[in-house]
Amino acid sequence: MEVDVKKVMEHLNEIYQCGAKPDGTFTRMAYSREDKKGREVFCGYFEKLGIPTRVDQAGNLIARMEGTDPSLPAIMVGSHLDTVPDGGKYDGAVGCMGGLAVCETLIQDGRKLKHPLEVVVFTDEEGFRFGSGLLGSSALCGEELDIHPEDLDIEGKTRREVFEGCGMSVEHVAGAKRDPESIHCFIELHVEQGGTLDKKQIPVGIVSSIAGVSRFEVTITGEANHAGSTMMEDRKDALVAASHFIGQVPETVRTHGNPYTVSTVGTIRVTPNSVNVVPGTCTFQLEIRDQNDAVMKEIETRLHTTLEEICQREDVSYTWDPISYHAPAPMNEAVKKAIETAVKKTGTDYMVLPSGAFHDSLLMTGLVPTGMIFVPSENGISHSRYEFTKEEDIGLGCAVLLETILEVDNMEMSC
Amino acid sequence: MEVDVKKVMEHLNEIYQCGAKPDGTFTRMAYSREDKKGREVFCGYFEKLGIPTRVDQAGNLIARMEGTDPSLPAIMVGSHLDTVPDGGKYDGAVGCMGGLAVCETLIQDGRKLKHPLEVVVFTDEEGFRFGSGLLGSSALCGEELDIHPEDLDIEGKTRREVFEGCGMSVEHVAGAKRDPESIHCFIELHVEQGGTLDKKQIPVGIVSSIAGVSRFEVTITGEANHAGSTMMEDRKDALVAASHFIGQVPETVRTHGNPYTVSTVGTIRVTPNSVNVVPGTCTFQLEIRDQNDAVMKEIETRLHTTLEEICQREDVSYTWDPISYHAPAPMNEAVKKAIETAVKKTGTDYMVLPSGAFHDSLLMTGLVPTGMIFVPSENGISHSRYEFTKEEDIGLGCAVLLETILEVDNMEMSC
Repeated sequence: MEVDVKKVMEHLNEIYQCGAKPDGTFTRMAYSREDKKGREVFCGYFEKLGIPTRVDQAGNLIARMEGTDPSLPAIMVGSHLDTVPDGGKYDGAVGCMGGLAVCETLIQDGRKLKHPLEVVVFTDEEGFRFGSGLLGSSALCGEELDIHPEDLDIEGKTRREVFEGCGMSVEHVAGAKRDPESIHCFIELHVEQGGTLDKKQIPVGIVSSIAGVSRFEVTITGEANHAGSTMMEDRKDALVAASHFIGQVPETVRTHGNPYTVSTVGTIRVTPNSVNVVPGTCTFQLEIRDQNDAVMKEIETRLHTTLEEICQREDVSYTWDPISYHAPAPMNEAVKKAIETAVKKTGTDYMVLPSGAFHDSLLMTGLVPTGMIFVPSENGISHSRYEFTKEEDIGLGCAVLLETILEVDNMEMSC
Repeated sequence: MEVDVKKVMEHLNEIYQCGAKPDGTFTRMAYSREDKKGREVFCGYFEKLGIPTRVDQAGNLIARMEGTDPSLPAIMVGSHLDTVPDGGKYDGAVGCMGGLAVCETLIQDGRKLKHPLEVVVFTDEEGFRFGSGLLGSSALCGEELDIHPEDLDIEGKTRREVFEGCGMSVEHVAGAKRDPESIHCFIELHVEQGGTLDKKQIPVGIVSSIAGVSRFEVTITGEANHAGSTMMEDRKDALVAASHFIGQVPETVRTHGNPYTVSTVGTIRVTPNSVNVVPGTCTFQLEIRDQNDAVMKEIETRLHTTLEEICQREDVSYTWDPISYHAPAPMNEAVKKAIETAVKKTGTDYMVLPSGAFHDSLLMTGLVPTGMIFVPSENGISHSRYEFTKEEDIGLGCAVLLETILEVDNMEMSC
């Protein structure tokens, strides 16, 4: 029983073309014309297979292939089809095409699972349109949703307007909540989006956990003053203080974290932001990610202490405000085991590694036994037109997904 | 013969009130209603003294009190009346009120100078409206003007429109050029805008020179990448590299400059400026100021080398583009000497110090013998509503200005 990787690549290409935008990029922004077109094409593949699809109240697209035992909960696989602006061909789409390929292979080989198999396309994973992602998986998992009809998207359209264009209503999104009893387990095939597998030349990764994320907004307040007449010794330069701090972040992580611990200052602004004025304030956002909550806390404490020391030395003040926190989400042991057995069956080299990036699986870990399979991203590049995964690696990923499904079809599960 | 400092303070207050804005700030932006009102009130003071005023083609307001010898060139004093947004009471205004006070005192005492005395209010010294200042003094000195009818101000109005509202025309501004033979020397009384006089509790400063300024725009290019899935060791973080550089600027100045050498990074931006993306580029503007061109060059070379080393170490690239350069402008020896003699006559404590900030005098040094008198800025604060200079110091400044004028009235000058 072998997945037809040529067909998977054809499907990836077809879906990518659906994202063609007038500006020459390939973008399937959630709820957009391009996103809808991609979903239509995806539905068409299932139609040809005689597999029915439905859309839940959160806009999640779900294809369901019945198994031999109607009393059993569904094995759920899938990912998302929406992309970031000028995105690539693989992020999200590989997991959806992988689910489709499993259905095709099973049907072609006349093989029936005991459990129903559901292939899900989650709504708005990327989240750049309204500023927060993972909408479909959050709703399916019954998470509290911080969405409002008057939310504005990046084009200034209201969420109500956008949702109505997709036959959705803000008030009913929570209705997508699934009974965990109805799902046997969830398995997501995805590109790594980091460079570990590519650097080690290992084609398959078994995800140990999705990193937790702490985010903070830091504002340093010094004294804006004339950049010509204020002597260096009289300055309280907020940007110099911030620079001392930001420069120490990598070293702090190296010393007190593990190889997968990361911390990033991704935004920065100063006031008054004028070439001839000593910066009076500097505001930046900091995030810390790790698989282990204690490590995250340790890095946070170290960085906070570093900032405190720098601000004392530079005679400036600061605020350190938590913005958000997501706990690390370990994958289910039984599902990881099933993936490992599947990889070994295919004779593929593999490694166990964490995911630094968020995925719909982050939410799913809270609902049902969840596992993730990674395939390499060349040079770790993702969220970019230069995102690339080799055809043979996609083939291996799909093969492992198929074997894993066959494994879990014979397993008892408990969260 | 004594300057009436109470009257000077009254005038400063009256002019300050002309800047009252609906938003509660006191701002006399160049060419604005408030600026015009301030000038009207200022003209009114001279009218009362029977001294005629005129406006040249660059909008410079010039009051002229004739001397006893019509064949002699004018002693010119003055400064500017425009302010930065939410500015203070003293920057610029002190020099204009000082000139007025000298006229009043001379008239009251029935004392006639040999030279004519001109009190000038230069146009648009601050320059924040159109992004470049010293317009009036530049035009008067015959500098090449980089102004165009279609220039837009911070409110989106064209320079043509703004100038027409003041009875000026962009095409005729250069007509304000003065024959240097018509000016004996120029003397500007101004608040220090730095903290040296205030810290040393010295009421009068004789300016040795105005610092030169080199400005550069630096862009560091690394690699934007996912802040979760890109391990620290795989990053090319443009902001981390920039931070290492900015953090080293003060130390470089301390080591290779003198107490008045300054270097500032006043602006910064990163792309994509997202909390969950490693910054791919970081652009900032750097300036270096000193009285000595060789010191400026030395700091520039040191900083450039530092950046080069950091960028190599961090595996990122950079560009280093000069934006502008003004050479240091030493004050005229004879005028400095005249100020020193005047200060000694008043029995006031004084020091010689450089000016880190630009002034109209910067331009005037290129045209005629020029000198500057500083009075203290409390805590070095300027360009702010908190700007403050003690009444007694303003009185001393005006007295020194008067005595200096009496000195130069009896001196031969050569540039």
